[in-house]
Amino acid sequence: MSNDSLMANAIRALAMDAVQQANSGHPGAPMGMADIAEALWHRHLRHNPANPKWFDRDRFVLSNGHASMLLYALLHLTGYDLPIGELKGFRQLHSKTPGHPEVDVTPGVETTTGPLGQGVTNAVGFALAEKLLAAEFNRDGHSIVDHHTYVFLGDGCLMEGISHEACALAGAWKLNKLVAVYDDNGISIDGQVAPWFIDNTPERFRAYGWNVIGPVDGHDIEAMDRAIADAKNSADKPTLIVAKTQIGKGSPNRANTAKAHGEALGAEEVALTRTAIGWEHAPFELPQAVYEEWDARAKGDTLESEWNGRFAAYRAAFPELAAEFTRRMKGELPANFADIAADMTTAAHAKAETVASRKASQLALEALTAALPEMLGGSADLTGSNLTNTKSTLPLRFDQSGDVVKTDGKIGRHINYGVREFGMAAIMNGVALHGGFIPYGGTFLTFSDYSRNAIRMAALMKRRVIHVFTHDSIGLGEDGPTHQSIEHAASLRLIPNLDVWRPADTAETAIAWTVALENQDRPTALLLSRQNLPYAPKAALEPITRGGYVLAEPREVGAKKRTQAVIIATGSEVQHALKAQELLAADGIAVRVVSMPSTTTFDRQDREYKESVLPTGIPRIAVEAGVTDGWWKYGCAAVVGIDHYGESAPGNVLFKLFGFTPENVADTVRAALQRA
Amino acid sequence: MSNDSLMANAIRALAMDAVQQANSGHPGAPMGMADIAEALWHRHLRHNPANPKWFDRDRFVLSNGHASMLLYALLHLTGYDLPIGELKGFRQLHSKTPGHPEVDVTPGVETTTGPLGQGVTNAVGFALAEKLLAAEFNRDGHSIVDHHTYVFLGDGCLMEGISHEACALAGAWKLNKLVAVYDDNGISIDGQVAPWFIDNTPERFRAYGWNVIGPVDGHDIEAMDRAIADAKNSADKPTLIVAKTQIGKGSPNRANTAKAHGEALGAEEVALTRTAIGWEHAPFELPQAVYEEWDARAKGDTLESEWNGRFAAYRAAFPELAAEFTRRMKGELPANFADIAADMTTAAHAKAETVASRKASQLALEALTAALPEMLGGSADLTGSNLTNTKSTLPLRFDQSGDVVKTDGKIGRHINYGVREFGMAAIMNGVALHGGFIPYGGTFLTFSDYSRNAIRMAALMKRRVIHVFTHDSIGLGEDGPTHQSIEHAASLRLIPNLDVWRPADTAETAIAWTVALENQDRPTALLLSRQNLPYAPKAALEPITRGGYVLAEPREVGAKKRTQAVIIATGSEVQHALKAQELLAADGIAVRVVSMPSTTTFDRQDREYKESVLPTGIPRIAVEAGVTDGWWKYGCAAVVGIDHYGESAPGNVLFKLFGFTPENVADTVRAALQRA
Repeated sequence: MSNDSLMANAIRALAMDAVQQANSGHPGAPMGMADIAEALWHRHLRHNPANPKWFDRDRFVLSNGHASMLLYALLHLTGYDLPIGELKGFRQLHSKTPGHPEVDVTPGVETTTGPLGQGVTNAVGFALAEKLLAAEFNRDGHSIVDHHTYVFLGDGCLMEGISHEACALAGAWKLNKLVAVYDDNGISIDGQVAPWFIDNTPERFRAYGWNVIGPVDGHDIEAMDRAIADAKNSADKPTLIVAKTQIGKGSPNRANTAKAHGEALGAEEVALTRTAIGWEHAPFELPQAVYEEWDARAKGDTLESEWNGRFAAYRAAFPELAAEFTRRMKGELPANFADIAADMTTAAHAKAETVASRKASQLALEALTAALPEMLGGSADLTGSNLTNTKSTLPLRFDQSGDVVKTDGKIGRHINYGVREFGMAAIMNGVALHGGFIPYGGTFLTFSDYSRNAIRMAALMKRRVIHVFTHDSIGLGEDGPTHQSIEHAASLRLIPNLDVWRPADTAETAIAWTVALENQDRPTALLLSRQNLPYAPKAALEPITRGGYVLAEPREVGAKKRTQAVIIATGSEVQHALKAQELLAADGIAVRVVSMPSTTTFDRQDREYKESVLPTGIPRIAVEAGVTDGWWKYGCAAVVGIDHYGESAPGNVLFKLFGFTPENVADTVRAALQRA
Repeated sequence: MSNDSLMANAIRALAMDAVQQANSGHPGAPMGMADIAEALWHRHLRHNPANPKWFDRDRFVLSNGHASMLLYALLHLTGYDLPIGELKGFRQLHSKTPGHPEVDVTPGVETTTGPLGQGVTNAVGFALAEKLLAAEFNRDGHSIVDHHTYVFLGDGCLMEGISHEACALAGAWKLNKLVAVYDDNGISIDGQVAPWFIDNTPERFRAYGWNVIGPVDGHDIEAMDRAIADAKNSADKPTLIVAKTQIGKGSPNRANTAKAHGEALGAEEVALTRTAIGWEHAPFELPQAVYEEWDARAKGDTLESEWNGRFAAYRAAFPELAAEFTRRMKGELPANFADIAADMTTAAHAKAETVASRKASQLALEALTAALPEMLGGSADLTGSNLTNTKSTLPLRFDQSGDVVKTDGKIGRHINYGVREFGMAAIMNGVALHGGFIPYGGTFLTFSDYSRNAIRMAALMKRRVIHVFTHDSIGLGEDGPTHQSIEHAASLRLIPNLDVWRPADTAETAIAWTVALENQDRPTALLLSRQNLPYAPKAALEPITRGGYVLAEPREVGAKKRTQAVIIATGSEVQHALKAQELLAADGIAVRVVSMPSTTTFDRQDREYKESVLPTGIPRIAVEAGVTDGWWKYGCAAVVGIDHYGESAPGNVLFKLFGFTPENVADTVRAALQRA
């Protein structure tokens, strides 16, 4: 057996044996892509198994994440800290080899994949981040940012709509250092794809402005080697290599069948495959020679050492740039961030402006983007509505040759994503994973539906991605029920590890942005109004960071009177709560108003703090222009909400129609007190 | 002015005046597409304004729904029951002219559009339904199903990922009677699209197997007329007509600018436009001659009368087929449906099988698809996992010439949608809107995220679309947290007018299917387990239809003992509730178990019934393998749930790890009783 066959067959053996041992998993794609993987990982990929976090490594994304055993085999074989015992524990509790690759679980895994189409979209984000960092930090003779992004993907990723959004953008952005290899095996779970997948994929990608290579025989390592080498030479286009393969290659009876896709081969077929590929070793036992061939540690050490030398020279020449680069890659905020944030918030408090919270967000962004060059904004074709752009963020543009356009030496930091919400969200995930930027992007809150699984993925991966969701309720008005959010605030709050803020005014918005930036290990969704909101006078600003706080104690009815009820309100409904408080005070009813811009943040506070805001035994009434379901967990006696779709009419008409008025809130409190 | 110009300018005038009056809306696309609209609606569209529900009308979908004034103008001008007063009330409360077109609100509107990309996807569903009905019902010399589906769309729809999914399927299905007109004006909200939208759209659509015509001058009515005529001749491909237009055509200063897109022109520019296009009439005043030119009522009456004659001949020749066709188009279930459903459910009850609820769903489907030829199933490439196919539903296939393949005279009724969840959902919406079929389709519950906005649109439109979401919890096991649903059940329950069922066994699953089919005015999501579930013995079946019912009263501790607690459980956790009941009984604690397969259904029951299931004053404990937020509305004292992501491991390991065991449920009840 040639070394090439031996190396590829090591992947096949590990994949089929691990899946067999777990009796769960996907052997077909790892076996089918083993030769491609060898060509890329053995001959091209620049990485250092001893330091999976080396900055200038090539990024590798397995978009067909169900082929996880391919990646685990590669990481194990090339010398990452992934011993054979972990492969034996494939898909078992607390192993480092989960069903689908998970970043931060397995060393060398760059992003969590499995939900199809998102891996390749993350990869577009990786390649974009690389290109922007290179444009910003490289200097003549000092190329410290210079790596490729490789992605493997299958039919499934190409059928998913998000692949259209992402690949169209990759073409528009001329991401020439992005190389995608399409595992063109003609089989998906339901069988031979021909009846439901007739795309001429090369033509499709050429239409996006990509460089397309192939079809290439994906089992011909030399041909794949040449294709990858060609791809790396692309000057101004991303490259798709179409690799014709057999799913389950090596398995005499399962190759080229859908059965190879997602289930263990079975003991008998595993044995037959061993014979067919001439693999004589017991499961999980590999000859030392195979390990030696695959071992990438020495080469990786050389690559990183070389880069370290280059970075040292860069640091010597540009000490401030180097320090900034280091800070950016660590994801640390500027040293003066606390001051910037405090200034921004106290200024908002002092001005006490009546503006829409989307405008309040833009005011905060003016301060933040001026101070944080890592903020990389954007909008899914609603820039003027989302107000995600600022004076400091020019539109990001590329010239004909694919270079980033600089204006006065600065690159654009606001991305026109086009009408591509899901693509935007998953590209932002890729940018955040790459490092060097804090991505944020806007659309209407209702269209968070389009990007929902990418928001979830950021939460699962614990990445700092900030979603600016404006037009957050029926207050959107005339665009009507298709655009009016009803269930969206409540439904985003259900996503574990996602912070959701729905601020009531400029100060709350400034603090929401501050906390979102400080939270390194979770994404944030900011829900912002289309319409103007009055400033809510407040005694202190710090309590806002708790997510919920006492905004207004009952004053008018005298300090001695015991608080009879607490109104909890968020965002645009806080103003109605405050006016209801006045109406009730006139009746001698003492009501506290709690502003709760972030239930997710409030829920993390300690019991004592929560009790101080929502004292046991005092009836609570929640007010929010959205579905009521989520509020009952606070033991509310009543909720003023909307559990049906909106209407097409001006926003103020709808607020009245649906009972979001001081009078109705006050009546609801009175009724609750009578029942209590 | 030629008649052509006059007719198109009538649209321009109505659009700019209505938007101006509302000071809200989108004049640019209606003005830009006015000539195209004239070519289609005046020269080609077969419809009858006096009867918007005439079966064999051509379907028209405005995928760029923000151009709603275009459609309202056309409906008004051609003679639909949409008087000028309604146009004056554009975007105002309770008018028939909401911000975006809404089906069932405005006569002649076929589907609700606005969320981009979904209209064209609905249109693919319309065209598919037409093709399948034609194959099923037409007979030699009797062509009773024979209409086109036309769709207008803009850059936004083409950028959205879902357009990729839908148009790829339209090509694979050779939907030659689908004609899409692309309003290629080069402008989106953020400005000239060139920097972020470089797709070669004709090439892209040719890659999908479409017939592409153009670019055509979208302001040349004769050229558009010819293009549409050509498109109608396409034998085996859907057609995209690329029409070059100027957004806001007619407005001297706003045409060809992003400002024309989404805001009123302003009084001054409206006046300038009047002059520029030579329109001398006051707002909302049109010359009688224009009305006469546009009036499509006489022609429509002729077309429908002709068809009625043909249908009478068909009825005479094929009385049973004609009766079946009429039933199908009314959306009525077969006369014997109640018996079929009852038999299916009582059989399930009698067999009391232990099977996964996804298998229970397939068992129900075997009975239902055998009896209901209108059921049109499918899966997003997970047929063998979702178990959406049955013996009665062959795979739907098309031959090389685009005809539906028949096997023993029957057409396939199970669609391989490929890995296209969002496309599947919005195509199903189109199929349901067209009529003649009850669509259902499957994917994993977690990937409901991908299709979420289409599910919402079905709920908003009140259409009977059934989603089969399997692998509904951590019980999915080894595929890990990317695939394990945590927040999805709770989050789907938040969508107004969507019914959600999470059945516990075969009988509950059979009833969930029954209710889903009976509910003509809402979509349903069925959440089904991957893993086996034991049958839950029950005294009666009818109560299941209430969504929540008393499954097991405390027996062991003696009838006299007062019930001390109620455990509410759903789906795979009902078994644990029943065992916890036993454990508690052994301690002398009397607990009732309520099975709550559909909270949305239970919430619609009357107060008395709810009280009979959940009596006031008795502590309630909910158990569900999902986030806890949604359960507090039932006044629960405790919830056994999971508010974080899962792990990659076998499902039974995870259930134990995360506390979904009889012991933990019992302990939770004990703790709640101690606190009470």
